[in-house]
Formats: sequence, C-alpha cells, structure tokens
Amino acid sequence: MPSAVVLLSGGLDSYTAAALVQRDGFDLHALSVLYGQRHLREIEFARRVARALGARQHLEVSVDLARIGGSALTSDIPVPKERAIDTAEIPTTYVPARNTVFLSLALAWAEVVGAHDIVIGANALDYSGYPDCRPEYLEAFERLAALATRAGVEGAPLRIHAPLLHMSKADIIRAGLSLGLDYGLTHSCYDPGPDGRPCGACDSCVLRAKGFAEAGAEDPLISAS
Amino acid sequence: MPSAVVLLSGGLDSYTAAALVQRDGFDLHALSVLYGQRHLREIEFARRVARALGARQHLEVSVDLARIGGSALTSDIPVPKERAIDTAEIPTTYVPARNTVFLSLALAWAEVVGAHDIVIGANALDYSGYPDCRPEYLEAFERLAALATRAGVEGAPLRIHAPLLHMSKADIIRAGLSLGLDYGLTHSCYDPGPDGRPCGACDSCVLRAKGFAEAGAEDPLISAS
Repeated sequence: MPSAVVLLSGGLDSYTAAALVQRDGFDLHALSVLYGQRHLREIEFARRVARALGARQHLEVSVDLARIGGSALTSDIPVPKERAIDTAEIPTTYVPARNTVFLSLALAWAEVVGAHDIVIGANALDYSGYPDCRPEYLEAFERLAALATRAGVEGAPLRIHAPLLHMSKADIIRAGLSLGLDYGLTHSCYDPGPDGRPCGACDSCVLRAKGFAEAGAEDPLISAS
Repeated sequence: MPSAVVLLSGGLDSYTAAALVQRDGFDLHALSVLYGQRHLREIEFARRVARALGARQHLEVSVDLARIGGSALTSDIPVPKERAIDTAEIPTTYVPARNTVFLSLALAWAEVVGAHDIVIGANALDYSGYPDCRPEYLEAFERLAALATRAGVEGAPLRIHAPLLHMSKADIIRAGLSLGLDYGLTHSCYDPGPDGRPCGACDSCVLRAKGFAEAGAEDPLISAS
C-alpha cells in the first residue's frame, strides 16, 4: 500500500479527509503540528483520531507560530463570535501562512517516510474564507512541491489530496458517517471553555452545527456534553 | 522605507543577501529559524549579524525538524567530509523541505509586519545541489506566496529576493567586502569542533575556502582562529 502523510488536527474535516484517502488504499502517516494554539488540548483529539484511524504512526511537530502572532488563534486577539460568515472577508482567526507552514512540514516528513501523497482537510465551501484553503492555492503548492524535494528532482512528484475541497460541511459529515467515523472523538471549537466545552458561537462551532443540522444527524460531541 | 523579512542563518550568504537588499533601500526584519541544528551555536552568529546590519528587529522561531529527521544536520547521520561536490547528487546534509519551511515562516511573519518582500541567501552556483536552492523552485514559491496570504488576496503579491542566486561564492564575497561586511561575524561549518572551530572539510567549509581563495581575500574567521 502506498503511504500518505495526513495533516491531522483533531477536527472533523481532517479526520474525514484521512478516512477517505485511507479507503482509497493509502497507509496513513499522521502529522499533527503544535503551533502555539490557544488550546493545546487539541492534540489530545488528534491522538484519539490517529488511533481510531489505525494510522501507521503519528508524529507531533512543534513550530512556534505564537512568536509570529497575527491571529486570534496564536495571540491574545479575541476569537470573533456570532460573526456573519462571509468568505469575502478574512477573519482574525486566520493564522498567517498556516497551511503553507503545515504543508511544508508534511512535505518534509513525506520525503523522509517515502510518501508521495499528502492529505489536507481543506474545504473551500463551508469555511471561513482563509486564502490558503482555496483550490488555486493548493494547486500552487503541488507545483512547488514538485520542485522542492529530492523526489521532485528524481521525477516522482508529490500529490496534494484535498478530498473535501468542494464538499459542503453536511456532505463531509454524511461521508464520514457512512464510513462509520465517530465524530465524538473530534473537536472543532476555536475558543472552548475551561472545561473544554465548545463555545457554540465561533465560526468553527457555527459551521459544525450547521453541517450536522443539514446532514440530519446529531453531533455526538454536543449530545455527550 | 519598505520592509523586507530576511532569513538570517549566521552564514556569509544570508548576511550578504541582506546587505545587498538593504543597500537597495529596504528596512530589514531578520528571521532566524531554530530547527534542531546539531549546533545551536549558529544562532549566536545570526544575532551578531543582525546587530551588525542594524536590523529593525530579529525574531527567532523554533521548529522541531529534528523530529522529522532525514538529514545529517538534524539527525545522527554523519556530515560528509572531503566530498567531491557534484550538484547532480543531493548530499546527506540536505534537510528535507528546509527552504520551504523557512520561506513559509518568513511569509507568515511578512504578513504580520506588513512586508511584501522576503530575502533568502540561496545560491545555485557554488552550492551543494539542494533542490530548494534552484531558480525554478524560488519562482514556484513566489507564485504560491501570491495566493497564500491576505496580501495576495488583496492584490499585493510578495516578492522573493535571492540576490546571490547566480553569483559564484567569490563574487558573493567580493560584493560583501565592497559593502564593508565583516565576515568574521559569520559561521559556515556544518560540523564544528567542540571549541566551535570550523572542520575545514564539509561542503560548506570547502565552498567558503574556495570562495575566499578565488576572491583573493583572507577569511577573517580562519585567520582569527
């Protein structure tokens, strides 16, 4: 089975993207990036998801994006709540160049494990308007990757898999449920309470709730809490 | 004066690249990446160089590439010595996707400080044959950067400056000396002794010595030791 490096955040998108690529016959090497999130708790969810997927290995790499700042997720800028989600406006939860940093690390590790495939849960439909989730961005990264590494020089270019790119959140949830995924293992909130409960009002909570509602399913994370 | 983010390693290439861009009218924001180098001492040289340049600020960001490994510079693979430098073969000192990781971090910080210019000391002539030092790689990164960030979306694309790209090491040293740079502040060795002295036999030492010899100049780092 060919190997794929999957960026795993502990959220439902990356879990579903990983499961879809696994179904297509890839052996998963899960990569989680500790980037100075406000809530390091996220990594616990990524570990659970990696175990549930039966990933061959799970690597956690630290990069100190809090030193760089510029985002509500890496500095003390407040997370916006009850925002009218308009993808024409980039919100303060955007982390400068986050996906470029994450994909770079995935590219590095792919080279080490001999993988020619990278999986990212990026979505350009029910999303917050981040520039680095757009199809043209991912295509540009794939072109860069083909030139960036030993594999590229040797003529084995790298593929970026973003199976959720054009799916609605409801479609993502339906696809995951049909694969038997347990979304109770995942976490989406940008600003959970001290007890870890989702705030219910940040973009990520709003998009998740809308997705479950449209899919006609119950969110096991909410029903359990 | 427009701002530029410069990747500063403490070596002579990035020092010279920074000085050339500064001469062209840019205000420098120096960025050094602590990536699990065998010799963290490098950062001391980067600090000295940033001070000598009068950089507006100097940010040090950690990213744990040692977790990823795959290189003589991030793992216990020995650094090759007295190697016949042949750029058709990628040596073990190549760090998987290093420049992609570094440029991603520079891109993130550029967005935060409002810079539209990034400087890298990449050189594709007297170099070790790393894939991510080639002109086509840097062009692909520039295209990616134009799509990756808020600035790109708003129509202000980012420029990658690699002023040394087509210069020989001797040309680089001549250019730096004519700008009055003190190469005694810099450090190039991949495998210094416990006392910090350059080994004299790794690619980086060999290319540096060849450059000084061809430029008809004395290396202040060697003459001082």
